[in-house]
Amino acid sequence: MEQLTVIKIGGNIVDNETALDQFLSDFSSIPGRKVLVHGGGKIATRIGQKMGVEANMVNGRRVTDAQTIELVTMVYGGLVNKNIVAKLQALDCDAIGFTGADGNVIRSVKRPVKDVDYGFVGDVEEVDAEFLSTILESGRQPVMAPLTHNKQGQMLNTNADTIASTLAVGLSSKYETQLIYCFELPGVMRDINDEGSVITQINPESYAQLREEGVIVAGMIPKMDNCFDAIGQGVSKVRIAQASDLKSILVDGEQKGTTLQA
Amino acid sequence: MEQLTVIKIGGNIVDNETALDQFLSDFSSIPGRKVLVHGGGKIATRIGQKMGVEANMVNGRRVTDAQTIELVTMVYGGLVNKNIVAKLQALDCDAIGFTGADGNVIRSVKRPVKDVDYGFVGDVEEVDAEFLSTILESGRQPVMAPLTHNKQGQMLNTNADTIASTLAVGLSSKYETQLIYCFELPGVMRDINDEGSVITQINPESYAQLREEGVIVAGMIPKMDNCFDAIGQGVSKVRIAQASDLKSILVDGEQKGTTLQA
Repeated sequence: MEQLTVIKIGGNIVDNETALDQFLSDFSSIPGRKVLVHGGGKIATRIGQKMGVEANMVNGRRVTDAQTIELVTMVYGGLVNKNIVAKLQALDCDAIGFTGADGNVIRSVKRPVKDVDYGFVGDVEEVDAEFLSTILESGRQPVMAPLTHNKQGQMLNTNADTIASTLAVGLSSKYETQLIYCFELPGVMRDINDEGSVITQINPESYAQLREEGVIVAGMIPKMDNCFDAIGQGVSKVRIAQASDLKSILVDGEQKGTTLQA
Repeated sequence: MEQLTVIKIGGNIVDNETALDQFLSDFSSIPGRKVLVHGGGKIATRIGQKMGVEANMVNGRRVTDAQTIELVTMVYGGLVNKNIVAKLQALDCDAIGFTGADGNVIRSVKRPVKDVDYGFVGDVEEVDAEFLSTILESGRQPVMAPLTHNKQGQMLNTNADTIASTLAVGLSSKYETQLIYCFELPGVMRDINDEGSVITQINPESYAQLREEGVIVAGMIPKMDNCFDAIGQGVSKVRIAQASDLKSILVDGEQKGTTLQA
């Protein structure tokens, strides 16, 4: 099986032109097939303010009303996605932008209302790995905005971490797939104040122990659970690393960040 | 050679939800390979006003400063393009959105400054007909926003009529290509007040005569010149027709609108 790398970057990179340019230069140097998934929440908030659309967050998630889905469709699908694609093209990386609606590559369903009505938010139902692999085999790199659609004409806001893991799982039927989450810290750390305390490897057994010991707590637990879910569904490994370490890891083969494996 | 239809719609359709829905329903019913090119200037102007970005028009063209290229990248590449793609997907038309940057399908050069500095405006240099035909042969329909890039990291605003004719010319090496401009009037008319006066066929000889007679004047002359240029470069015919007549023309084979041929 050919290898594939799916990399997710968040607002801390997308919203910082210097960091983004460095990341894209590194990304373009990574050999082989690759997919980039990006966020863009901070830019959406900033442009929303100019337009009089206030961000409304509940439990750390953006509530996506009618104005907000227009805003994020513009910002994620247009401004951020095309900016990244154009910059990668300048680096001779043949990028092609996608939302889930394009070629129906990710179909989702509007999240049912339970305690909170998150509005136009999509929970992923289906990935078209076949078409994405056609794009990859043509030598192009998909750049995915955190947007999907419901196949009934409605765009839906979808968490970029979820898009990344869903794509990695979907594409693991065709490729030996590695999923990398770019993180603000150098990896999962025993002591957040000690850069030397990165835990280099975690498997399901050591993960259970790290939770028991209280090393992995709170917001990291659902993230780690999602990573192990992806591994359980065919992804060969998941890494959590700083974007600035990406080239060392993928080009120079250095051991940095945290690797999760079965 | 397989047949291909390239259709361009402008602001009068894109900006009117009822007209757009009707058009997209008609578009989805057209048999065979097809490409849709859209404008979106009116929506850009409206959203620009909300954001405090004023439209600055010179000779009927938008001057694209740094704020404006951000605006149109959001609106054309994000909001309008993804809205159209999602609506087509709901009609079981497997649409995929593009700007010129995506897959480097249209590379342009920033317009040199002469009398007027139009800013971030692109003049098309190269179309990747090979990749677009791969998309078409996969059963998907490209939906093209009026944006290109310079392969140096900069998105550029590009006239939708020009994008449509450039794509039609580029793809005429692979397909017997028909180019259709959707127009606010039922075609080129002898008398603008008489719906029955549509000129059904124009060739280069009758075009010369219609100009001499003063039937085709002013703003229509560069448009018609562009159409005949496209025909001179391999496009088999160009039609100018009302969007609401599209289905009659392409599905029912009726003679409506104006057909330009060599």
